[in-house]
Amino acid sequence: MSFSYLNNIELDKALQLYIEEIEKSCVFWGSEEIFVKDSFGRITSEAVYALISSPHYNACAMDGIALKASSTYGATDTTPVHLIEEADFKRVDTGDPLPNEFDSVVMIEDVIELGNGSIKLVNASSPWQNVRQIGEDVCANEMIVPSNTLIEPYIVGAFLAGGVLKVKVRKKPLVGLIPTGDEIINPKSDPGPGEIIEFNSSIFSGMLENWGAIPRVYDIIPDKLESISQAIKSAASECNIIIVNAGSSAGREDFTAKAVESVGKLLVHGIAIRPGKPTILGIVNGKPVIGVPGYPVSGIIVMDQILKKVLEIYRGISYPSNETVNAVLSKKVVSSLKYKEFVRMKTGFVDGKMVATPLNRGAGVITSMVKADGIMEIPLNQEGIESGKEVKIRLLKDHEEIKNTIMVVGSHDPLIDVITDIMRKRDYGMYLSSAHVGSIGGIMAIKKGEAHAAGIHLLDEETGEYNISYLKRYFPNEKVNLIKGVKRIQGLMTAPGNPKHINGIVDLKKDGISFVNRQKGAGTRILLDFLLKQKGIEKEDIEGYDREEYTHMSIAALVAAKNADVGLGIYSAAKIYGLDFIPVCQEEYDFIIPERFMEMKHVKTFLDILKSHEFKRILTEMEGYRIENAGRVYTL
Amino acid sequence: MSFSYLNNIELDKALQLYIEEIEKSCVFWGSEEIFVKDSFGRITSEAVYALISSPHYNACAMDGIALKASSTYGATDTTPVHLIEEADFKRVDTGDPLPNEFDSVVMIEDVIELGNGSIKLVNASSPWQNVRQIGEDVCANEMIVPSNTLIEPYIVGAFLAGGVLKVKVRKKPLVGLIPTGDEIINPKSDPGPGEIIEFNSSIFSGMLENWGAIPRVYDIIPDKLESISQAIKSAASECNIIIVNAGSSAGREDFTAKAVESVGKLLVHGIAIRPGKPTILGIVNGKPVIGVPGYPVSGIIVMDQILKKVLEIYRGISYPSNETVNAVLSKKVVSSLKYKEFVRMKTGFVDGKMVATPLNRGAGVITSMVKADGIMEIPLNQEGIESGKEVKIRLLKDHEEIKNTIMVVGSHDPLIDVITDIMRKRDYGMYLSSAHVGSIGGIMAIKKGEAHAAGIHLLDEETGEYNISYLKRYFPNEKVNLIKGVKRIQGLMTAPGNPKHINGIVDLKKDGISFVNRQKGAGTRILLDFLLKQKGIEKEDIEGYDREEYTHMSIAALVAAKNADVGLGIYSAAKIYGLDFIPVCQEEYDFIIPERFMEMKHVKTFLDILKSHEFKRILTEMEGYRIENAGRVYTL
Repeated sequence: MSFSYLNNIELDKALQLYIEEIEKSCVFWGSEEIFVKDSFGRITSEAVYALISSPHYNACAMDGIALKASSTYGATDTTPVHLIEEADFKRVDTGDPLPNEFDSVVMIEDVIELGNGSIKLVNASSPWQNVRQIGEDVCANEMIVPSNTLIEPYIVGAFLAGGVLKVKVRKKPLVGLIPTGDEIINPKSDPGPGEIIEFNSSIFSGMLENWGAIPRVYDIIPDKLESISQAIKSAASECNIIIVNAGSSAGREDFTAKAVESVGKLLVHGIAIRPGKPTILGIVNGKPVIGVPGYPVSGIIVMDQILKKVLEIYRGISYPSNETVNAVLSKKVVSSLKYKEFVRMKTGFVDGKMVATPLNRGAGVITSMVKADGIMEIPLNQEGIESGKEVKIRLLKDHEEIKNTIMVVGSHDPLIDVITDIMRKRDYGMYLSSAHVGSIGGIMAIKKGEAHAAGIHLLDEETGEYNISYLKRYFPNEKVNLIKGVKRIQGLMTAPGNPKHINGIVDLKKDGISFVNRQKGAGTRILLDFLLKQKGIEKEDIEGYDREEYTHMSIAALVAAKNADVGLGIYSAAKIYGLDFIPVCQEEYDFIIPERFMEMKHVKTFLDILKSHEFKRILTEMEGYRIENAGRVYTL
Repeated sequence: MSFSYLNNIELDKALQLYIEEIEKSCVFWGSEEIFVKDSFGRITSEAVYALISSPHYNACAMDGIALKASSTYGATDTTPVHLIEEADFKRVDTGDPLPNEFDSVVMIEDVIELGNGSIKLVNASSPWQNVRQIGEDVCANEMIVPSNTLIEPYIVGAFLAGGVLKVKVRKKPLVGLIPTGDEIINPKSDPGPGEIIEFNSSIFSGMLENWGAIPRVYDIIPDKLESISQAIKSAASECNIIIVNAGSSAGREDFTAKAVESVGKLLVHGIAIRPGKPTILGIVNGKPVIGVPGYPVSGIIVMDQILKKVLEIYRGISYPSNETVNAVLSKKVVSSLKYKEFVRMKTGFVDGKMVATPLNRGAGVITSMVKADGIMEIPLNQEGIESGKEVKIRLLKDHEEIKNTIMVVGSHDPLIDVITDIMRKRDYGMYLSSAHVGSIGGIMAIKKGEAHAAGIHLLDEETGEYNISYLKRYFPNEKVNLIKGVKRIQGLMTAPGNPKHINGIVDLKKDGISFVNRQKGAGTRILLDFLLKQKGIEKEDIEGYDREEYTHMSIAALVAAKNADVGLGIYSAAKIYGLDFIPVCQEEYDFIIPERFMEMKHVKTFLDILKSHEFKRILTEMEGYRIENAGRVYTL
């Protein structure tokens, strides 16, 4: 056994080492007997046998008459058999016990009544016809299910049918979660600077519940070796598995590793996965203790790749594997040779094929998990994957949901969120997925067949016209429609009261004014460059010209936080943040959609919403938009 | 609007009619505000927006020093920059707020300490390097998720990161379950004749919980029109949806339909699906009321095909679709032109392809749902599907589980249950699936590539030898191994005390003795025929020779229930049921496995278990077996 400190051990090796050690030295807990009616979703700890047969008596399977089959032999249309009630037959209903003296049931439709309890039959019956014989479903003492079986609703039915009212199941593992860190605080809606909201234990609790474990969240422990050691020791005496969730501050992992070492056995410190490297595997008091990194995405990957595997040992049954699909990679992904990488992917179904695009890879960005449709794994020793290659994606969402999603990429406007929400409210089973890559980025995505629609607002400096000339230039041979969106006001956003007295574009070059810009390819940046050229201002003269953000909202958020003095953006974003707004111009924000997508169900719904009263009502409330022609289609 | 009474309306039409009526006339219930920490698995009833940005301040993303990027410009190995603590930089940890006067962070590894608070840098830094800017994850007022979104653990994290502590979600629908029937009783372990255990409401409750609804089970209502009407009315005032579960007795459906009509509106009575035809759709007091048939499999199909669709309206979101796979049909399936049929299927993965076999189609057989791996739908107006055709199967189990299953078919012996259980106990992720089709059936399944192993006990009348000659005869050109199983004692099973004084095979022809036989192709039946021939007894002289059962256990169960006087079977089955046993002969029960499967992981495990101490121990306890050579492989 070789232990590995602060190293870069491969995931599979780390897991093998850890699982061997757990199976060797850990205390497993036993089973408990519970009522069958409470046993959904639990796992049998031993085989379950029927106590009674089902049916437990010979049951009539039809409404009709019970008789001896032999009394009907030879019955035909020309040689009917006559029978007398009580002597030769008895009337029975479905579910009645078959009277002992009889062996067959004739359905009532085949009985010809002659009155006075006398009947006539014109067909012979055979023995055990229309009888559910004892044990047809299950025989007493027959095994219903073996050990380690997940109890589905049907299985509960089979238990009860077999007279089984109590069942032995594996106890649910109790998993202790210890959040640590001086700067982390319990969730609140008004944290101060430097205070980090502790939400990992909520995410992990949800994952653990989904996996059939019971989470127990402990109080936040400060960054002190002794406190952490004590907390681990105490949790190890109460729980079956312990998770220590390091914060993101310096030397934290060392504290957790040292703490594990001081009260138990440290096996692994550092695993060759990204995100997720600073992972700690140890055993304290016969209980697995896992140090999970503090960045939420890292934590989720480690929970999924390691904790779930540890739970499987305790559970005796594997979790269902998520569906894996093939997809075409839309963008080159680079990877480190030293790590197995887990990349969150957005997927879309366009032109009959699945397309996958990598999302923000920052391990702190929890919304990238919200947006992700799946995870792509890049093995160790691989430098990356080229655009256009077929890759495997492990889906986090239902395949059908992805197929029923309209992909809208390109320039950002809050109105896309409005459409997304109306679509979800109105038509269940239909989804909108958006990505903010700027107007030019949107055009490129359409060209490459990676999106159904793109939002653009591109000014032609020659004609002063919006969008149309770009469409002609980028799609000379393909039929792509222009769908009118909105006219919106672009302007400069400043802190409330406009403390730096900014009155127009020319003020951006003043000393002591910090600007925040949009990314290259964004329509708003193209507009800024046009305005600067008009006024004869050099980019280099503007402080913050190179500081890039991807949406109107993030520009407004930075200005509102007084982190920048001014940014260029749309009125609705300024209004949401309560900022001052100096209008600069009005522009046209439209959508482009290739002709071949126009008949798709979700594209039609998208156009319907653009034209809807509800959409107009909400945009009017948001202000800064003119919406006369929204949804009108121009075929170029 | 046309109502349909006791008709045979197509499923899709019935659903469309019903859903339209529900959307028109039903009362929907609203949303409730709950704490985010309690919101896993719930569905948003409106879009959720971030209240604060995350990060809500510019956060240092590395341990190191904060500085102004401009103070490092021009730094190289040969032209290092010297900086003074407090004046030019401050020390920071990951997560710390970036001091207002600075715009960049240099990681500690790149800082060259000169002592006395003085440092040296040899690389220039750029603005906003190693800084998580305000709103990098989510901006205040940005939409986190739209309406009608299932709240996954990640989403809880994103809510909390955005300062959202409470969230509006759709209320869970409350579904009332009304069991009806004079003969049904609450589950118990010793029901009397004619008493039927009511387990449907337990199955349905489990299904409803899995679907995010709250079940409420009412007391059993007797078969009286007034009582049922009253129960529906009362449930409709308390619940959002009502299920009336008719028993299996006569005219029951008429009662429920009449009851619905007397207190509300009856829309459909009779749907063209099998199982599930006697289904009732109605609306009472603005609440959907569904009459679900009493046979459990019918009930499950109706719940899945209709109730789940109704819940989707209330839920605003579709349920994940089960995976659908292609499989080769191993056996012809006949179907009625008048019904859309749902056939429970057993699937197996043999020679790289999925094979599917129909299970018992009796709607009362709940264990067929326990055994089923998936459901095959046969459309209306189709007479059936030929063996060998490719069909679509909607899986009920995980695809991986099916791939990791060894298929053992052929003759029945309780020792197969023992192996199944040991396999589940020992190796999670590996499964055994068995089907009892008799020895000859097992050989045929192996020939057709539908099973990995078959249990056989076939006596060669010429040589007196077991199994080997059959193997040679049926597999002249294929390498199939014989794996020794057990020697077991076959004999006559009678009621305890042997009241009819049966002493041997010759007694079977005595008057007043009822026999129960095994199915054609069963080794035990071949043995009986051999013994009868030896003694010169005619089949026709034995009462019950034509009464067929499929397993030793069901023979023993019928004898134990005094439903037959005698049957031929193995000692272990007689012992389990406490029956008297008159030994007739000892036979050899072995397995056959094609050579090409011998290296498969689950086949190896199967052989290991046959040779294991645990297997021997359990069989010794069961008695009636000799197990010296179990697991020995004979290559013919």
